[in-house]
Amino acid sequence: MLDYKKIRDDFPILKELMNGKPLVFLDSAASSQKPQRVIEAFADYYRCRNANIHRGAYRLSYEATDLYEGTRRKMAKFIGAPEPESIIFTRNTTESINLIAYSYAMNNLREGDEIVVSELEHHSNLVPWMMAAKKTGAVLRHIPLTDDYRYDYSRLHEVLSDRTRIVSVAHMSNAVGTIHDLKRLGEAARSVNAIFAVDGAQGACHLPVDVQAIDCDFYSLSAHKMLGPTGVGVLYGRKKLLEEMEPFLGGGDMILTVSKDDFKPAPLPNKFEAGTPNIAGVVAFAVALEYLKQVGLENIHEHEMALTSYALEEMKKVPGIRLFGTEHMQERGGVVSFLIDGVHPHDIGSILDEEGIAIRAGHHCCEPFMKREGLPGTARASFYLYNGPEDVDALVLGLKKVASIFKVATPAGV
Amino acid sequence: MLDYKKIRDDFPILKELMNGKPLVFLDSAASSQKPQRVIEAFADYYRCRNANIHRGAYRLSYEATDLYEGTRRKMAKFIGAPEPESIIFTRNTTESINLIAYSYAMNNLREGDEIVVSELEHHSNLVPWMMAAKKTGAVLRHIPLTDDYRYDYSRLHEVLSDRTRIVSVAHMSNAVGTIHDLKRLGEAARSVNAIFAVDGAQGACHLPVDVQAIDCDFYSLSAHKMLGPTGVGVLYGRKKLLEEMEPFLGGGDMILTVSKDDFKPAPLPNKFEAGTPNIAGVVAFAVALEYLKQVGLENIHEHEMALTSYALEEMKKVPGIRLFGTEHMQERGGVVSFLIDGVHPHDIGSILDEEGIAIRAGHHCCEPFMKREGLPGTARASFYLYNGPEDVDALVLGLKKVASIFKVATPAGV
Repeated sequence: MLDYKKIRDDFPILKELMNGKPLVFLDSAASSQKPQRVIEAFADYYRCRNANIHRGAYRLSYEATDLYEGTRRKMAKFIGAPEPESIIFTRNTTESINLIAYSYAMNNLREGDEIVVSELEHHSNLVPWMMAAKKTGAVLRHIPLTDDYRYDYSRLHEVLSDRTRIVSVAHMSNAVGTIHDLKRLGEAARSVNAIFAVDGAQGACHLPVDVQAIDCDFYSLSAHKMLGPTGVGVLYGRKKLLEEMEPFLGGGDMILTVSKDDFKPAPLPNKFEAGTPNIAGVVAFAVALEYLKQVGLENIHEHEMALTSYALEEMKKVPGIRLFGTEHMQERGGVVSFLIDGVHPHDIGSILDEEGIAIRAGHHCCEPFMKREGLPGTARASFYLYNGPEDVDALVLGLKKVASIFKVATPAGV
Repeated sequence: MLDYKKIRDDFPILKELMNGKPLVFLDSAASSQKPQRVIEAFADYYRCRNANIHRGAYRLSYEATDLYEGTRRKMAKFIGAPEPESIIFTRNTTESINLIAYSYAMNNLREGDEIVVSELEHHSNLVPWMMAAKKTGAVLRHIPLTDDYRYDYSRLHEVLSDRTRIVSVAHMSNAVGTIHDLKRLGEAARSVNAIFAVDGAQGACHLPVDVQAIDCDFYSLSAHKMLGPTGVGVLYGRKKLLEEMEPFLGGGDMILTVSKDDFKPAPLPNKFEAGTPNIAGVVAFAVALEYLKQVGLENIHEHEMALTSYALEEMKKVPGIRLFGTEHMQERGGVVSFLIDGVHPHDIGSILDEEGIAIRAGHHCCEPFMKREGLPGTARASFYLYNGPEDVDALVLGLKKVASIFKVATPAGV
């Protein structure tokens, strides 16, 4: 079991008051809070260790390089990557997926080729593929969804064909919390010789990840959703693929040699890291990874699921509530999307904000899904290792207040 | 005059010992050090204000959005941009230039079109154009250089033609410190209806910049070279051009609407900022901009030039020294590139490192220039607002030690 009360003590922001009330932070799916030691790692870096990496002729620069490359090694271990050089540091999950779209898809796809996604994907796992499709003449195919927002695996064959070149899916849906069966999807992708890419923005922060067990070609994630800083993302790529791909951004550090009119790219991982990276962010990210490892991803997931089950039970008592997401609890994570009859999700958010409760309201960057469901968006509470049942209680109390203000009378059921 | 001793007190790292000796930091052209208040801004953000921007329904998120957009407004003022939405936050100068190469050049250039650069450019202002040229069939043309590493303006006409589509030059050379005449270059670019882009990585950190006075179409810069955090860059673009350009990265926040198969991009500046940006970095960058504004860019430049003049005089006393860069002092900035006869630049760096002196040695991401000059690279000292004459004295003492160790006898002249 996870001692979330002890963990809370490590997060200074959770001691803050919002609108005079203790902060109840239920928006970790958007961005997580940071433990004190990550904040200190930043300050320590800039106070005693700051220098540009890879190119200095002095100790500070060597040390900064060691710290930066140390995070790469830790990251590789964290997700079971076979070697550090298959870890590319980007800005965020979005840039990681764009890197695949630009360097792989735009150079390899042809007219009529197919990219398999779903209508449940985050915009970051849709728009880059739309751009690649536009450039190459490829088309998007969408995995059918079940009524409870899981992929309909029994109909996977309908969207796969010998024209499928890429299958790109989320590890977990940020909008309704579905955790997808990556092994099954990977096997399906390989059965048609397609590339298998995973949008792990909501994955590696909440679930143990082993990219070799998943057998994926790409896995993308963001540090800021896993206790780390903003401005750091990761692209894991199968080494052979990364080696074959064209570079993405051109500039310093990604070259082997440059002449007046041409250049040769550097070996991995530098090939994909042009210019001065977010050194301080990458250095501080290592501390976040250590923190997560120490608590244990299994423990975190178990804790989040206990909270989610409790939340689903308690939220059913709110008049007019409508809860989204599957009841197959082994196929969902710590995200609860909901509506209250006749109340706009933004109004839910505003009233909860008055109570110091931070949730998200809107389309959660999943417009195609909201359009498909005919929804104006949803309100969304999401949990992480520092949340406890008292946060759920505060949320439910707040939601009852919303229902009362809007005079919502009868429970609408689930 | 600038009180550099008082300024030094604001930079905690300058109180550190390196190899038991006080740190003499002469590598700001690679990355500057950070004042305490920038470091604190980071910690403060993560401790009390952290939340994802633009999409939250709660106070923390609104406040984070205000802080983030506040930096955009400050940045616009800092370089004289007519409106905040012409400021795009990127990772670094490199990404800014790649954004132009991908979104403008690759979509607008055709076979035989010409991109004008020079052999003195940083790789980040060469490789993206090589990539765009390769995709489009355009070719690179190189502005002739004078013997003292200035652009030969009298021969500008030789490289400009009705096929010139882009002129992209550095504000200041990171390798030899030449400051280029941007007004003249901009006029030349406009005379052939070419886009005028400025690589400002070494510009806005050292010199007052007014993009409207320069009348450039693009100006790129990096926060980490101007007292700000790593992982934050800026692209200023002429609004009309940015509006006409295709988006670069696809994903959340850069869209107006998304359907199953297509999307419409958001208005500026969001159109070019996909996914969760480096929020904490951008927020802390505002504090760096305020610091620089308070000291005054004119004062900083004057101080650096006094140091450079002093350094050039004193360094001439080192046996076997060879100094690179123009003697037209009004056309150079605070960078001194040098060699000592018979000593490899990396050996210079290593021996100075033993003395606690941090310089850079190598090709400074300017391989075409080094090849042109037949150099193995150079050693480079660069100055900023926190350096003083005692740093120059330490450098010269260190260089005399290098000359003595390598038994360099006679001064080789300049």
